[in-house]
Amino acid sequence: MNWYTEQWSKDCKFSIAYDKALYSEKSAFQQIDFYRGEEFGTFFTLDGLMMVNEKDEFIYHDMIVHPAFATNPSIKKVLIIGGGDGGTAREVLRYSTVAEVVMVEIDERVFRLCQEFLPITASGVEEDSRMNLRFEDGLAYVKNAPDAYFDLILVDSTDPISVGEGLFTTAFYQECYRVLNKDGILINQHESPYFAEYATNMRKARNKIKAIFPITNVYQYHIPTYPSGHWLFGFASKTFDPMKDLNAEAWKKFGLETKYYNTELHVGAFGLPNYVKKELEHGE
Amino acid sequence: MNWYTEQWSKDCKFSIAYDKALYSEKSAFQQIDFYRGEEFGTFFTLDGLMMVNEKDEFIYHDMIVHPAFATNPSIKKVLIIGGGDGGTAREVLRYSTVAEVVMVEIDERVFRLCQEFLPITASGVEEDSRMNLRFEDGLAYVKNAPDAYFDLILVDSTDPISVGEGLFTTAFYQECYRVLNKDGILINQHESPYFAEYATNMRKARNKIKAIFPITNVYQYHIPTYPSGHWLFGFASKTFDPMKDLNAEAWKKFGLETKYYNTELHVGAFGLPNYVKKELEHGE
Repeated sequence: MNWYTEQWSKDCKFSIAYDKALYSEKSAFQQIDFYRGEEFGTFFTLDGLMMVNEKDEFIYHDMIVHPAFATNPSIKKVLIIGGGDGGTAREVLRYSTVAEVVMVEIDERVFRLCQEFLPITASGVEEDSRMNLRFEDGLAYVKNAPDAYFDLILVDSTDPISVGEGLFTTAFYQECYRVLNKDGILINQHESPYFAEYATNMRKARNKIKAIFPITNVYQYHIPTYPSGHWLFGFASKTFDPMKDLNAEAWKKFGLETKYYNTELHVGAFGLPNYVKKELEHGE
Repeated sequence: MNWYTEQWSKDCKFSIAYDKALYSEKSAFQQIDFYRGEEFGTFFTLDGLMMVNEKDEFIYHDMIVHPAFATNPSIKKVLIIGGGDGGTAREVLRYSTVAEVVMVEIDERVFRLCQEFLPITASGVEEDSRMNLRFEDGLAYVKNAPDAYFDLILVDSTDPISVGEGLFTTAFYQECYRVLNKDGILINQHESPYFAEYATNMRKARNKIKAIFPITNVYQYHIPTYPSGHWLFGFASKTFDPMKDLNAEAWKKFGLETKYYNTELHVGAFGLPNYVKKELEHGE
């Protein structure tokens, strides 16, 4: 039996068995590895960190996409930064009311390899006529994007190391604010409260976003293959409050079947443990 | 560096570094091992499974105790089955309104060793005059306990293998029903939805309890050192509904500082993901 092992902290590691190392490549941006095993199906890592696996990708992709749509069911123009596996775009494209999706992934190789090895997330995304798929730097893209254009930005990034670093900066969040329209919502991958290194990044992201957006919240989900299994998204917006403005009836009318998300869970996801709230308030 | 490793499923394992194996003993009931490491502090395992560690024991103990008290703030007589580390009793004893706590732990060695090695959970429990500490079989105890005596039963057990097995049986749940008074609440360790073996035990517990109690719910919490980090408690009761009857104001008046639990999180904990709800409805 072969084991893929990820160091969650100096004193903690997590291992997944695989039958076969499917593919390995060093792209211009990062090390990409695909594996296949029994329980987790096909999974891939970037620079040695678990990104997506067939067993629980639905948790991440449900939670990055649906809370925003249940808060503002009128979202039509969506910008995805990162998200190279295609799973975030897949969920957004399920809304027939969405007219345009710009997806900006810096590393085309991630997307192409997911098309080949991970169709569960990448299949059908490129073919959708509403998609504008761009392989370029996300920070550069938002700098040049027009004012007040998007209803929703989804930052589906890696951790703030190497390629994902620019997506955790004040400059990036400011540009996001500018390209969002007056009802715009920003959802971002917000790290995790349990292990110190991730918690530091979580606090940094929180502080920067809080200085820019009038409404900022953090919500949680259970994803066992990410460090500690307790992971967060940020919900920042100009007018919509994800709790008060939750429109459960409108969301249910979309008729989407979801394996993780539901509108009761939506409310609960914002009910953070005291130690997490304290860490978020802590500052850098 | 030494590693304690736990197999979470055939294809998944979790490892924690320790500096020192503090103590090892095969009691009359199980294998008991204590370790000490930097990040997780002192931790102990029973038959090779993580029970309690200093880093995150507060999550488990907050969540087994406080939701019941926030639903019925008048709880006075409490029965704890298992809970040998003392952490559950510690949290219950923080309520000055509690008059009597019977704790029935089958393995006295677990409690004595926690007094020695894990004072964070065990210290002060035996000395509290409200405690009736008994070292005997929990199933046998409830069979002989009087009708309608307790306000609350907390089943703080291991998984339904070896010593914990009797605490996942219909016979046990029936006796719990009988010894609870007309407003009685039963909280039980309810396993986890993510890995197949744990999910099977989760469904079995659910079905048995549902056949006996009129009100049954399941709530979740994030505890990274248990398999998958997504873990559940059952909330079964005769009259109280943990959502509708949540009495946040009364609970806040207790003035307890908690590191995990709060009354917003209480509501959210009952908002289960769709896949978990489906598994719970599935039956055995």
